[in-house]
Amino acid sequence: MPIKWIGFDLDDTIFNGTLLVEKARQASIRMMIEYGLPVPEEYAIQLLDEIVIEFGSNDEHHLDNLLLRLKNDSKFRIGQEHNVNKYVAAGVMGYHREKVKHFKPFKDVIKTLEKLKSLNIKTAIITDGSPKKQYEKILRLKIEDLVDDIIISDEVAVRKPNPELFTYFLERYNCKPNEVIYVGDRLDKDIEPANKIGIITVLVHRGTKYDPKKLKQRINIKPNYHVNSLYELFKIIKLEES
Amino acid sequence: MPIKWIGFDLDDTIFNGTLLVEKARQASIRMMIEYGLPVPEEYAIQLLDEIVIEFGSNDEHHLDNLLLRLKNDSKFRIGQEHNVNKYVAAGVMGYHREKVKHFKPFKDVIKTLEKLKSLNIKTAIITDGSPKKQYEKILRLKIEDLVDDIIISDEVAVRKPNPELFTYFLERYNCKPNEVIYVGDRLDKDIEPANKIGIITVLVHRGTKYDPKKLKQRINIKPNYHVNSLYELFKIIKLEES
Repeated sequence: MPIKWIGFDLDDTIFNGTLLVEKARQASIRMMIEYGLPVPEEYAIQLLDEIVIEFGSNDEHHLDNLLLRLKNDSKFRIGQEHNVNKYVAAGVMGYHREKVKHFKPFKDVIKTLEKLKSLNIKTAIITDGSPKKQYEKILRLKIEDLVDDIIISDEVAVRKPNPELFTYFLERYNCKPNEVIYVGDRLDKDIEPANKIGIITVLVHRGTKYDPKKLKQRINIKPNYHVNSLYELFKIIKLEES
Repeated sequence: MPIKWIGFDLDDTIFNGTLLVEKARQASIRMMIEYGLPVPEEYAIQLLDEIVIEFGSNDEHHLDNLLLRLKNDSKFRIGQEHNVNKYVAAGVMGYHREKVKHFKPFKDVIKTLEKLKSLNIKTAIITDGSPKKQYEKILRLKIEDLVDDIIISDEVAVRKPNPELFTYFLERYNCKPNEVIYVGDRLDKDIEPANKIGIITVLVHRGTKYDPKKLKQRINIKPNYHVNSLYELFKIIKLEES
């Protein structure tokens, strides 16, 4: 069958979200230390990572919680004279500055999208997350004009791994599943739901969540293809169309 | 009496907060238009100003409300194909970029603080507002090391115009009211409460809220001094000490 659409996950598929967040968190800690927070950088980063896991990555009080923990930690002297609000403000500034500086797509993205356009294959970003945050990423990545549609799950009130998100997409464009490829970095959220409704799935080995170790355990989730680079999509298209 | 401390309000006293916010809002609208929002710049700015007045300047949904209004406005065609979340993301980016670029103190601030230090007069920022936002401003203005204390009302759970904020300050440093000068741009929030407990008050004619027209009506609020520049403080100190 001819491939009509290719959908892409956003974070860790189109850009290195994991690395960006990691660097931004480090910049956040460094800025707090620069403004006088008396803790070793490595220790604070480790503590922040723990907090992100415990409270979830979308919690908005990571830095407040970090400071609370440090205040209760007898190893450090974060007493009355150290203003927690100042450090949180400094941390937010550091995070934001780093984030703004480093938003760029993986180096195969632009060329791949352009080449797909020249082949008359339509492209979409299909992603979870807060619509405003996801749009901010898309605008900063400067890829909005290179794709034909953007679908953010919270705008449809359906979140991955709910396969309804992909059903919605197929119905929107009146496509059959085998006319569509979906590319993502996660077996659980990207590959499994798209597989379920018969979309051709491509797992890209990027970021940290494609997790080849877990792959062996969860043998019931198998993408149709594995790739290291988006350039490999063109071979896949030929295979599927032949 | 010798002057021991001079307290300063922050917004519109230390930096041009009114102008900064105005420029940032304009940048926000321009960025939305750049990303395709089909409205005239002037009209959108006027609408945003209205929304800020109606919902208060600390509301976090000004841009969402702006887009809601525009969507309901039959003059513009902001239909299905125009994604509100994209515009809000663009607006936030524009606002933030402008804000980061233009944070600087009024040009008399640094020299005044340095000269006060050389005269052994201590200085404090005494301001209302969200502690994290106020600290962000102070850090971006790079004045933290130039003042001896920073008091943000929400950290003490007392807000201007409650004079308790100033009583708290006097008790903290064991000062008499006539040993302290307070400088601010607002008759209602700065001058009135400091006057009430006998602190020497200076109204600086900056920003938009010192309002010389209202001044005539509210004759019961009289600052001890009016200034156009902080350099005039040195004359006031001499007068008070003689």
